[in-house]
Amino acid sequence: MASMSTVFPKSTSFLSQPLTKPHKSDSITTSISFPSYSRNRNLTTLRVRAGLIEPDGGKLVDLVVSEPRRREKKHEAADLPKVRLTVIDLQWMHVLSEGWASPLRGFMRESEFLQTLHFNLLNLDDGSVVNMSVPIVLAIDDQQKTLIGESKRVSLVDSDDNPIAILNDIEIYKHPKEERIARTWGTTAPGLPYVEEAITNAGDWLIGGDLEVLEPVKYNDGLDRFRLSPFELRKELEKRGADAVFAFQLRNPVHNGHALLMTDTRRRLLEMGYKNPILLLHPLGGFTKADDVPLSWRMKQHEKVLEDGVLDPETTVVSIFPSPMLYAGPTEVQWHAKARINAGANFYIVGRDPAGMAHPVEKRDLYDADHGKKVLSMAPGLERLNILPFRVAAYDKTQGKMAFFDPSRAQDFLFISGTKMRALAKNRENPPDGFMCPGGWKVLVDYYDSLTVTGNTKLPEKIPV
Amino acid sequence: MASMSTVFPKSTSFLSQPLTKPHKSDSITTSISFPSYSRNRNLTTLRVRAGLIEPDGGKLVDLVVSEPRRREKKHEAADLPKVRLTVIDLQWMHVLSEGWASPLRGFMRESEFLQTLHFNLLNLDDGSVVNMSVPIVLAIDDQQKTLIGESKRVSLVDSDDNPIAILNDIEIYKHPKEERIARTWGTTAPGLPYVEEAITNAGDWLIGGDLEVLEPVKYNDGLDRFRLSPFELRKELEKRGADAVFAFQLRNPVHNGHALLMTDTRRRLLEMGYKNPILLLHPLGGFTKADDVPLSWRMKQHEKVLEDGVLDPETTVVSIFPSPMLYAGPTEVQWHAKARINAGANFYIVGRDPAGMAHPVEKRDLYDADHGKKVLSMAPGLERLNILPFRVAAYDKTQGKMAFFDPSRAQDFLFISGTKMRALAKNRENPPDGFMCPGGWKVLVDYYDSLTVTGNTKLPEKIPV
Repeated sequence: MASMSTVFPKSTSFLSQPLTKPHKSDSITTSISFPSYSRNRNLTTLRVRAGLIEPDGGKLVDLVVSEPRRREKKHEAADLPKVRLTVIDLQWMHVLSEGWASPLRGFMRESEFLQTLHFNLLNLDDGSVVNMSVPIVLAIDDQQKTLIGESKRVSLVDSDDNPIAILNDIEIYKHPKEERIARTWGTTAPGLPYVEEAITNAGDWLIGGDLEVLEPVKYNDGLDRFRLSPFELRKELEKRGADAVFAFQLRNPVHNGHALLMTDTRRRLLEMGYKNPILLLHPLGGFTKADDVPLSWRMKQHEKVLEDGVLDPETTVVSIFPSPMLYAGPTEVQWHAKARINAGANFYIVGRDPAGMAHPVEKRDLYDADHGKKVLSMAPGLERLNILPFRVAAYDKTQGKMAFFDPSRAQDFLFISGTKMRALAKNRENPPDGFMCPGGWKVLVDYYDSLTVTGNTKLPEKIPV
Repeated sequence: MASMSTVFPKSTSFLSQPLTKPHKSDSITTSISFPSYSRNRNLTTLRVRAGLIEPDGGKLVDLVVSEPRRREKKHEAADLPKVRLTVIDLQWMHVLSEGWASPLRGFMRESEFLQTLHFNLLNLDDGSVVNMSVPIVLAIDDQQKTLIGESKRVSLVDSDDNPIAILNDIEIYKHPKEERIARTWGTTAPGLPYVEEAITNAGDWLIGGDLEVLEPVKYNDGLDRFRLSPFELRKELEKRGADAVFAFQLRNPVHNGHALLMTDTRRRLLEMGYKNPILLLHPLGGFTKADDVPLSWRMKQHEKVLEDGVLDPETTVVSIFPSPMLYAGPTEVQWHAKARINAGANFYIVGRDPAGMAHPVEKRDLYDADHGKKVLSMAPGLERLNILPFRVAAYDKTQGKMAFFDPSRAQDFLFISGTKMRALAKNRENPPDGFMCPGGWKVLVDYYDSLTVTGNTKLPEKIPV
């Protein structure tokens, strides 16, 4: 893989912007009108603090052992029963360690697991609730359970058996796989990517507890410096003097329709009276399904989009969200939104069919395309987040560019789905001018070429577009 | 079927008790200690009002058109597009009409359906939430949808096409059957009784709206006078001067283990300082699966239990809960509890594996036996209800009666499951003395005899006990 300096030559420019305005340490509350997606709460006027939104539970969780105690903790870990983590387990440990799931302090115990499965929330001791829609759990098998015996602590080890964390005050409980799948995905059909990768063959027990992570998680893939923790993101956003932060979750290449939407959101926020809205362009970095474009190529593509001026580096922070992808639609979009609150975002852009995919067995989408934004707008614990529903963008043939769809002249518009986009790139065909900046498109074509060169057998045949 | 007067000769005695103490119309708040199942809310001391618990949403919903307007409404209904109700639809209409699901005012619209599926709650306009864990929806097919066209109202008709209700301000939306089943039952395995009866062959659309029910729902099966509405139950409980109401949901014959538990609960409530705790013995009256004992026989059996003095008629109200049974375990037990709040109960007894059943395909219980009480204790909107977990009762061979299980002398106890009990009765064998009062047992044996006499082909062969 290319080193980071080649991949993102200008990347520091959007991660170390000069301070555009002094950071306000005092919180100014302003009352502004905002046309958010209708909630039950009858809010037509939102009160927005000029400082960043508070993390869930009031305090950002940091589970990485501080430097002076690491040596001691490593010694402790060496003597404990070991649980070996899979790649996805490690991604969740990363997520937990940096507080994306604040106030969760480790893999879920049964009480947290049940609240997540049934209510998509966690009750806090003070009577408040936070959203928590996807189980963050660690599975072990009978043999590991026997090995742990009566121990109240275990060490979590990597594929080379090196201890990387301690799980304290553990609780082991049954792993109700079928029920977990049914309640999280709303189906038990075979072929769900995350289920096949991480649940089907996992152990029949779950182990929860409080995490102490021995070192910050690094992947050494040249992209680590784009993996800003919620704490680092908040620092960056404060440094830039953001008075509104709007997050855009994505797992696909950015096309000009996305760009239009993000630019337009900024325009709307400025109109609402915000002085310095910052976009958090936040590609997902963990597990994705086989036919999605891999992270490294997506990051190259995002870079081109900024280089080509499609998005403004001055008002954009690009960072990697370390979570695995579940493809769990309305359930998962809540997780995507909640984690971004913890990173400082108070506006969340939600599109058509977020975190959705085709039904693995039937010929239809797995989720109703509108349920994601509806469920997000109703979700307990997300009341503080302003949900910005996508306006549908499509290729306007009369203008030769991406534009918001105008149903009164539907015949002028061309819809190019992700599937269609991937098919075009695979076939080395060009999309219509103005669909994506040429530099970004070339990255995609290069990616599919690289699959042919390396003899990847998964490369599908030519797809008619 | 026997007429009601034979079935329940002494029934009026426990439905029309003399006032044991004057009803307190002023609410006295007392602070008492109660060892309820641990909640996240750190309540060791509960504040309990001397009056009855408020219904969800503050006001009991009553959707039956008042007498003077019935004629006019019937005329209106005659001219509207018709939707024919199934037996289960009618049971839900009954449930809705009397306010068991307060503050719900009709079959769910999509917003309510999604909140129920994902969060088991409904957000109210004042920012509060109520529990709502099972979808109360009405399915229609393509043809019915076409027939309804642009109409904003429909009439709901019985099997003879007689209008029985009007559904106003309707919303028609997709019926995502697989997702509904997966999220409600935590499985999509074939063989779930309610699913096969009411969902699999139902239409692909759901129709929600506000109900106006033209007449109080009656079944004319001799049991209607035991179908007290929440309003009537509250009146009865107030008349009796109840200062605590503890509800016991059941769909099985009462044995002496149940009776012990109910008697013991009353003793505990008296110890806590309540002066007049009343038991609401509340058998479910709607759809049940084929191998459950039918309502009419269960009511005969419950009568014998009171006649034989196993339960005290002075402090017991027996009434029928009109809901169908879903067998949806931890999801359904919330519904069972929530509906009883609306009927005035502030204590709810929850047993092992409530609303559970065997997995329809695999050789195991569908739900973890402890999840029901755990989920109930965490459920949003049920914070006001005191959850009383079952203590396990079993047959104590040394005493020759049902007693609380003592793990220190486990060998002295005999567990008699519902399945085992049914098998004994089917085989005309007797359970150990003291398991159930003889009069109650005879009803069970008579029931299984009646199946043989009527040539019911579903009667299983002798089962080894």
